[in-house]
Amino acid sequence: MKVSTGASMSIDGYVSGPGESGFEHLFAWYGNGDVEMPTGNPEMTFRLTRASYEHQKAWLGELGALVVGRKLFDMTNGWGGKHPLEVPTVVLTHNPPTGYEDSEWFEFVSDGIESAIARAGELAGGKGVGLNSGTIASQALNAGLLDEVWVDLVPVLLGGGTPFFSGLGVAPVELEGPLQTIQGDRVTHLRYRVKK
Amino acid sequence: MKVSTGASMSIDGYVSGPGESGFEHLFAWYGNGDVEMPTGNPEMTFRLTRASYEHQKAWLGELGALVVGRKLFDMTNGWGGKHPLEVPTVVLTHNPPTGYEDSEWFEFVSDGIESAIARAGELAGGKGVGLNSGTIASQALNAGLLDEVWVDLVPVLLGGGTPFFSGLGVAPVELEGPLQTIQGDRVTHLRYRVKK
Repeated sequence: MKVSTGASMSIDGYVSGPGESGFEHLFAWYGNGDVEMPTGNPEMTFRLTRASYEHQKAWLGELGALVVGRKLFDMTNGWGGKHPLEVPTVVLTHNPPTGYEDSEWFEFVSDGIESAIARAGELAGGKGVGLNSGTIASQALNAGLLDEVWVDLVPVLLGGGTPFFSGLGVAPVELEGPLQTIQGDRVTHLRYRVKK
Repeated sequence: MKVSTGASMSIDGYVSGPGESGFEHLFAWYGNGDVEMPTGNPEMTFRLTRASYEHQKAWLGELGALVVGRKLFDMTNGWGGKHPLEVPTVVLTHNPPTGYEDSEWFEFVSDGIESAIARAGELAGGKGVGLNSGTIASQALNAGLLDEVWVDLVPVLLGGGTPFFSGLGVAPVELEGPLQTIQGDRVTHLRYRVKK
């Protein structure tokens, strides 16, 4: 089972700018093409360039389940009931919320990143597990559980904010690749393997 | 006159790791090929892959003069008398050192980044000016004087250290490109134009 993470990142390594800014730059490539890509949310349809679409399709095609952090889960209010990628989603949290007992989309795991990834692997139906948010990915890296890093490198300098990776106890971490370099419009899709 | 900066940078945006570490990763591509590239220092010869060599030759071919910071100048002890790139080098410093009055390679400018770049431009003989160290490049960006950013992106996560850019008062700064993407061994050479 492959465990991967991916994010839109500025040249200076941030996945959001100071005060949660910069998304109009980081996510410009989700809307600057003419190939429509629906999401689980009917109000949200991406419009990608052909290159970015093919890349995104390959990335999503490999994903059978997600592990996300509680912060992201709360910020999106549980994505209104299911993650837009429409795959089983394991939320890593010390305090599982109530009201999701019957959810067919969410499970809550409170005993650490290894359990969360293991459970997501069971739910993934033979596909891979994606980690959402750099905090979760950093924990997985520290535990030696991350296999691939997909970076959507955006030509902007944000000057501060939230770094993709943080608290890397195991740094330096060597990566292999890029296994793939795909040029979109205002994004370079890079894919790396974690060297083990 | 084109003003550019370039550096070997980790995926997480650092040009050196914690405690000046990580150079064996950041500079691996200077020694992992079989094309020799002499420098002004007879004890230092790079061995690059063909792709990195062509890239490096293009980058150096455009450079007529450098602006460097005092920290780098001191750290290298004035590169023993001249910068290894063998081009006129302007050092930006509040306190010009003594002993360099007759140097044909170094000049010292103490009244700011704009003067330093202007003087380097006079010395560049029609070629471009390169800025060495992210601090100097960040000052130039803030002053609207930087035209291009060359990033040698190295597949490693350093987890901390010195970021390429810092103190960007003007962020977010949009870049254009990559104008060029060249894959070496353990490095992706990316070249961007600063949007103005």
